[in-house]
Amino acid sequence: MGTSGFISGLLDTISNRGRSLFERGKGPAALGLNGGRPDFGPLVEALLSGRGEASGVARARRILDLWTAANDDGKRDFLLLLARVYGPRLDRLDAAIDAYQANPGPSTISAVSRAAEPRRQEVLRRLNLAPGGISCLVEMRRFLLTIRGQDPTLPALDEDFVHLFSSWFNRGFLVLKKIDWSTPANLLERIIHYEAVHQIHGWDELRRRLAPPDRRLYAFFHPQLVDDPLIFVEVALEPAIPGTIQDVLAEKREPIDPARATTAVFYSISNCQEGLKGISFGNFLIKQVVEELRHDMPQIDTFVTLSPIPGFARWLDARRHAAGEDAGQDEAFPTPAERDILQALDRPDWTLSQEISAAVNAVLLRGAAHYFLKARTADGRVIDPVARFHLGNGAKLERINPLGDRSMNGMRQSHGLMVNYLYRLEEIEANHEALVTRGEVVAAPAVLALLAPAPPPEEASGGGMGDRLRRLSRRRKVAAVEE
Amino acid sequence: MGTSGFISGLLDTISNRGRSLFERGKGPAALGLNGGRPDFGPLVEALLSGRGEASGVARARRILDLWTAANDDGKRDFLLLLARVYGPRLDRLDAAIDAYQANPGPSTISAVSRAAEPRRQEVLRRLNLAPGGISCLVEMRRFLLTIRGQDPTLPALDEDFVHLFSSWFNRGFLVLKKIDWSTPANLLERIIHYEAVHQIHGWDELRRRLAPPDRRLYAFFHPQLVDDPLIFVEVALEPAIPGTIQDVLAEKREPIDPARATTAVFYSISNCQEGLKGISFGNFLIKQVVEELRHDMPQIDTFVTLSPIPGFARWLDARRHAAGEDAGQDEAFPTPAERDILQALDRPDWTLSQEISAAVNAVLLRGAAHYFLKARTADGRVIDPVARFHLGNGAKLERINPLGDRSMNGMRQSHGLMVNYLYRLEEIEANHEALVTRGEVVAAPAVLALLAPAPPPEEASGGGMGDRLRRLSRRRKVAAVEE
Amino acid sequence: MGTSGFISGLLDTISNRGRSLFERGKGPAALGLNGGRPDFGPLVEALLSGRGEASGVARARRILDLWTAANDDGKRDFLLLLARVYGPRLDRLDAAIDAYQANPGPSTISAVSRAAEPRRQEVLRRLNLAPGGISCLVEMRRFLLTIRGQDPTLPALDEDFVHLFSSWFNRGFLVLKKIDWSTPANLLERIIHYEAVHQIHGWDELRRRLAPPDRRLYAFFHPQLVDDPLIFVEVALEPAIPGTIQDVLAEKREPIDPARATTAVFYSISNCQEGLKGISFGNFLIKQVVEELRHDMPQIDTFVTLSPIPGFARWLDARRHAAGEDAGQDEAFPTPAERDILQALDRPDWTLSQEISAAVNAVLLRGAAHYFLKARTADGRVIDPVARFHLGNGAKLERINPLGDRSMNGMRQSHGLMVNYLYRLEEIEANHEALVTRGEVVAAPAVLALLAPAPPPEEASGGGMGDRLRRLSRRRKVAAVEE
Amino acid sequence: MGTSGFISGLLDTISNRGRSLFERGKGPAALGLNGGRPDFGPLVEALLSGRGEASGVARARRILDLWTAANDDGKRDFLLLLARVYGPRLDRLDAAIDAYQANPGPSTISAVSRAAEPRRQEVLRRLNLAPGGISCLVEMRRFLLTIRGQDPTLPALDEDFVHLFSSWFNRGFLVLKKIDWSTPANLLERIIHYEAVHQIHGWDELRRRLAPPDRRLYAFFHPQLVDDPLIFVEVALEPAIPGTIQDVLAEKREPIDPARATTAVFYSISNCQEGLKGISFGNFLIKQVVEELRHDMPQIDTFVTLSPIPGFARWLDARRHAAGEDAGQDEAFPTPAERDILQALDRPDWTLSQEISAAVNAVLLRGAAHYFLKARTADGRVIDPVARFHLGNGAKLERINPLGDRSMNGMRQSHGLMVNYLYRLEEIEANHEALVTRGEVVAAPAVLALLAPAPPPEEASGGGMGDRLRRLSRRRKVAAVEE
Repeated sequence: MGTSGFISGLLDTISNRGRSLFERGKGPAALGLNGGRPDFGPLVEALLSGRGEASGVARARRILDLWTAANDDGKRDFLLLLARVYGPRLDRLDAAIDAYQANPGPSTISAVSRAAEPRRQEVLRRLNLAPGGISCLVEMRRFLLTIRGQDPTLPALDEDFVHLFSSWFNRGFLVLKKIDWSTPANLLERIIHYEAVHQIHGWDELRRRLAPPDRRLYAFFHPQLVDDPLIFVEVALEPAIPGTIQDVLAEKREPIDPARATTAVFYSISNCQEGLKGISFGNFLIKQVVEELRHDMPQIDTFVTLSPIPGFARWLDARRHAAGEDAGQDEAFPTPAERDILQALDRPDWTLSQEISAAVNAVLLRGAAHYFLKARTADGRVIDPVARFHLGNGAKLERINPLGDRSMNGMRQSHGLMVNYLYRLEEIEANHEALVTRGEVVAAPAVLALLAPAPPPEEASGGGMGDRLRRLSRRRKVAAVEE
Repeated sequence: MGTSGFISGLLDTISNRGRSLFERGKGPAALGLNGGRPDFGPLVEALLSGRGEASGVARARRILDLWTAANDDGKRDFLLLLARVYGPRLDRLDAAIDAYQANPGPSTISAVSRAAEPRRQEVLRRLNLAPGGISCLVEMRRFLLTIRGQDPTLPALDEDFVHLFSSWFNRGFLVLKKIDWSTPANLLERIIHYEAVHQIHGWDELRRRLAPPDRRLYAFFHPQLVDDPLIFVEVALEPAIPGTIQDVLAEKREPIDPARATTAVFYSISNCQEGLKGISFGNFLIKQVVEELRHDMPQIDTFVTLSPIPGFARWLDARRHAAGEDAGQDEAFPTPAERDILQALDRPDWTLSQEISAAVNAVLLRGAAHYFLKARTADGRVIDPVARFHLGNGAKLERINPLGDRSMNGMRQSHGLMVNYLYRLEEIEANHEALVTRGEVVAAPAVLALLAPAPPPEEASGGGMGDRLRRLSRRRKVAAVEE
Repeated sequence: MGTSGFISGLLDTISNRGRSLFERGKGPAALGLNGGRPDFGPLVEALLSGRGEASGVARARRILDLWTAANDDGKRDFLLLLARVYGPRLDRLDAAIDAYQANPGPSTISAVSRAAEPRRQEVLRRLNLAPGGISCLVEMRRFLLTIRGQDPTLPALDEDFVHLFSSWFNRGFLVLKKIDWSTPANLLERIIHYEAVHQIHGWDELRRRLAPPDRRLYAFFHPQLVDDPLIFVEVALEPAIPGTIQDVLAEKREPIDPARATTAVFYSISNCQEGLKGISFGNFLIKQVVEELRHDMPQIDTFVTLSPIPGFARWLDARRHAAGEDAGQDEAFPTPAERDILQALDRPDWTLSQEISAAVNAVLLRGAAHYFLKARTADGRVIDPVARFHLGNGAKLERINPLGDRSMNGMRQSHGLMVNYLYRLEEIEANHEALVTRGEVVAAPAVLALLAPAPPPEEASGGGMGDRLRRLSRRRKVAAVEE
Repeated sequence: MGTSGFISGLLDTISNRGRSLFERGKGPAALGLNGGRPDFGPLVEALLSGRGEASGVARARRILDLWTAANDDGKRDFLLLLARVYGPRLDRLDAAIDAYQANPGPSTISAVSRAAEPRRQEVLRRLNLAPGGISCLVEMRRFLLTIRGQDPTLPALDEDFVHLFSSWFNRGFLVLKKIDWSTPANLLERIIHYEAVHQIHGWDELRRRLAPPDRRLYAFFHPQLVDDPLIFVEVALEPAIPGTIQDVLAEKREPIDPARATTAVFYSISNCQEGLKGISFGNFLIKQVVEELRHDMPQIDTFVTLSPIPGFARWLDARRHAAGEDAGQDEAFPTPAERDILQALDRPDWTLSQEISAAVNAVLLRGAAHYFLKARTADGRVIDPVARFHLGNGAKLERINPLGDRSMNGMRQSHGLMVNYLYRLEEIEANHEALVTRGEVVAAPAVLALLAPAPPPEEASGGGMGDRLRRLSRRRKVAAVEE
């Protein structure tokens, strides 16, 4: 009550400071910029040399303003300056190493630690003295990522950003908030902008994802970036685990009474800040949302994703055209018969015939089981990035769904397959351990069963896949004429 | 409006999490504590070894709960564990040093930096994953400071705390808030508790410092410690620079119309968190409050402190009893005559006679000028800690006030002297530079003039100080009889 | 700070109550409704007879729930019941009148007042005991207005509603709020819905009216109807008084720096609640917004509307086809020559020729001057309802703008004319008095000058209006062929 | 979330307006007051004559400012002006009556209603146009109550205030808020000030009533008086129905875990606004708090007061000294034996002897049962005002507690007795009906049983009350000597 009002004041203040910073963006001219490439050297030196107190805030603000107004060359100049000039002082580092080697002990080790810290970390910390500094630093990192490969010194600078951001965006500082239809419009606008998995086409669609009683959206915020989410997840409350995203996003849907929902479906997770790439929030987000939902609606007992499989089609393509290296193995995939069936994928209309569709999907499912459970990258990791994320979090591979995403993107990346990862808080630890220590993906029996070679296809309708595809073509032409 | 309401929600959430943490404090028994000294080793190892995601939050919470419930021995165990076991891995450090020495370059330098970072920093960062973790870590540091001298490895651990706190409590994350009589009572209660300079004796006195229109109180908060200020400053709006704290704190005071105030007086600055010792906020606080006040009340043109001189009496005592080492110097202090006069200080009633009081205060003022302007510590710094703080911030030594603080504490620490430090934002930089580079304290002409030796005392009333003191004694006895 | 957080809690509570009421809407079946026409008689009797305390709230809630769920016949039943049965008790009224007539005095007068108050006022007051009752009563009044003419007793009931609403929606209870792009989406959705003057076509257009720095929107709210505005006004900050709404609403507009604006233009005022018809808010709204803007942006010195003239075309039509009753009067309108020119209005393309347009608009302007300054309704009032509103508020008729609104609606209702009413707070009282006491509309000299008969048209281009129109037709046909 | 932030803005605005009104209180001089008795006549006339829009707000504000600054004579002048001059217009009233009598029907009845309304009601409504007007009107009523008897016209004016306040402070507009230790201090200060039943002696005691987990305080607020509660109730959560207020308020109390509480005890209800006397809130407050608590803590199943019996000692005194009018009735009270025992009450030390105390309390309990269940005022109502309130609300007389309040006030007004009224929401209606229709107080069997005449006292210790009192005196003297 009282306190919370007081607290709100705190963040308003932050927010206002951020805003005024934004408004300060005056363009190069007002800042006396010469052609967009300011000379940052003396400014950084002054920032570092002062005790950081007498006028550190003003200096930090000036550097950030200049950087923001600079052109791309100017921006790169600054980052290269940090990367090249503001590493550790080598004379001091060498001296500290000498002392440590002569006399190893707590204080000489400490001295090496201190001497080895790149001075640019202190530069970045002092830049963060400025009000709104953090959002500018996030933008700086975003820019750095675009030029990271251009100079051998830049990756080390990037490491420093990651190091500091890991402190500043520590989980302990993040705040989970429910976003709904009574959220301020400027924030909702960002949600539309940031949704990366299943695009939101305007306000009406946004409303359909937020306003119905059986829909939820949660986001993580950082107190210093209050107008801007870090990551968000969209949740559908359902009576059962859904197999297709079309059902979840359907325009004319009858909402269910949330009290009757038994299943919370995480159907879209979007990272918002490119500049925070590599700082992981998603795992914490899912687990905290699970806790929130369990608290609010104890009758919900199933927490599951409905996820894309972005790497599947590429992998499958490689397998189809690879020499039969798995031949001889019992569970090899694809078998020659499967390879034959998968030819259908080369035609965009393969889903139109129920018969063909059934045959192809059966093979796809077995393929996906291999993809998740058997196939690994060169360095032994699960191939699919989304799978790596959820399985690494301790989720279980619950179900693979044929034609779960019929959108162009869905068909292209995974021939329509979608997957449900199941989050059971009690099993998370064990699942995670199994993966990390034994490389083992925990999956539902039905998924494991998919690994087995398919029974020889019934040839009731006669002919191989070639025949069937030809028949399909004929029917489609007739249909086209009749239309 | 909308957004700010949204924002407020953010911090409520933080606050609630903090609170629930607090409520979770279940005592050793509930946590399965064995005699108050849990075995932290396996817990820390698990915390570090996991990727920090699958169950890092739960592990962090468990360690913090255990530490909070442990007895002092258990608490020390944990800190020693961090200090002794979780430094850098020396094998890796040595390897990195070898590689660096063989081939100095960006990547080998980077590798040394990484290898040299004590692993306990990562432990602390992971502990901060837990909701409310930061407040527990601040408490941990507070405890550490009490045992810091007990083991040679602890200072390095303390450095790690300072390093991380400097990031987490970076100025950019702090929020300035005005505290007034409409602030929630639980927060005001803390203000009463934390006031360290001029004690607040209960709610009525607090009200006198907050509610009148010519009084202000500002505090810095951290978004993760919303119920608890980090530091606060009390401000009196006055028509002129005040010389005594009695006037400022007087119980029956007629408030002035703030629109008529020309002077903002910072009469008390209190740090609240012992665990954040060494993380400096005060300088930022004063400057931001100056900016706030200038914005709200443009007619205020003087920003000044009314400060104690905690080290003066001790220094003076030493000078009085030192051999006359300064003899021969023109401005030497104290001269023999002054020494004579200062004898009066040995009697508690020296202020009762106007005549004696005037003589003594004249000498004290000259002494204080020496104390601030001439005297230095062995390593060349200004002696007085409060002076070091304000002068280091770029303030100017504006005025020294006799009998500015007649409280017992004031008489004991500085024979009643108080001082005004003047903050003029335009001169701060130059003042700071003068002090840092030339060791020069910038002072008002009137203060500089005090350095000159006093004119020979007029002996109108006859006799030396001894005579006068004797006369005083006699008068007092008479008074005592007559009462 | 603290207090405001506390206060916010107050209204959240209200809001929640309102919402839960909404959610309670269970439909007739759940309420045990028999065919949608509940028997309200016993319920109202019970509500009135109880002391209103023991179970008044529950009874009120039940009646409101039933009424909401009833069909239109059921709803009318209830209103007729109030109108017919719950007037004053005539036996008591007669007795009170007898006593008063026998012995006129303070207490007998008082007794008549009490006895004369219709008992349905008490019914309505008790219905308002229920949480969220007020919004249901507003809806009840809205329904009443649709059937008001169906029974001779209903107008008296309507008067009771107006009487109570005037108390409950007293200006002292209304709150002015700025609506902007950070306002919750559910509220913005209502703004789109309620805009009645210049329709808002979706969220993008809404954003254009809210988000640019030179646009404002203010609304009045009632503490009991927090999710729903009562009335709102849209404001454009401009460098000068605009003459056309197209400029104000242009899709590709370069916003101006608000600091450079000198003119605040009220270009749309929409009442939101039909059920509050006759309870006037607009006048207070405009004046309070003027005060807000003057406070925030002292450089703005002109407060003006850009208003439609909904009754002009109808009036003009009547004048064109009326016998020349004003013939002989100096300033009669229209003159035969003007009548001739106005023939152009009968063709939709009259604005396409600059020449014709100029001639027609000159006549329209003179006509509008007559319409505002001379023409009156049978009972002596200004004819135009918008003019009545602003002039009655003390505004001044500042300028009439040809082709100010080229939309279909604008051309139809006023042949494109728009008008600026000027609000100068210092003159409001005098302007209002002039209108009320002398029937005089205060107008700018340029408007007064329009009354004078136009100079004989220059016939430079030869021929009368007929010729010119014919020429225009020819040109258009050519254009059509060429397209 | 978003919306609530928006909403909070609403009330901040209200609050600020109120505050600025307060600050405007400039004193008579600034307002051009002549000796503190302004001439209100022309001002009121202007207020009424205008349409209330053009400058109504400014006029209302001026009148309220003048009234606030006026001296008591000036204030009375204004009220008498309203009372005497601004009744109904008698000419219009007479005409309306004539028309009604000639032709009774809906419209002539309506016309009488309108004509009979005192014009001062419209004056008061227009005064409420001014921001913060309502709080000034409440103060006006407070003042009116102090002079109500001074003029025969004032009671009618008071009725008008009550009439309007009943609308403006309608239950539907009130907001229930929990007050706790995080509530702003300025509000808590008012709670200390307003507590009328068991005085709060400063902030420490306030904290004891708010901060422990087993204590609650709820208040009603009006949106226009946000800084000031209307009424509040203090609640103790207990494991059983308490019999003494000393236990509830004990300084050194071990709070219980609220989850273990089964009983919510309303131990103090205080009305805050004298100016709202006669506008009833308490009943609504209790019932809504019951609902809140049931929602938050479903395990609480008993809602009960711990109430004083302010009229008991006076009534008992009358009974003791009345002639034995009840003689002969079976249950007559007091019997001669009881009268004898009650003599002890005339000595302040009667509670010191357990024996005497037991005897006296037995009689007091029987007396109290008579007082509540049998005794009635001349017009047939329950005598005790607190009992009237709770029983009228539908509570049940649950228990009478000897020595429930040993404070001086408690001993004086009820010889220490306190009573528990039980609120069972399901029985409220029936209890209320029983009281209203049959004059019957619903009481627990144990209370009913008290009505029966006491068994003849056992004379084990020999002698009558006189003997026992004498023995008591002797013992006390001995004790005094021994001390």
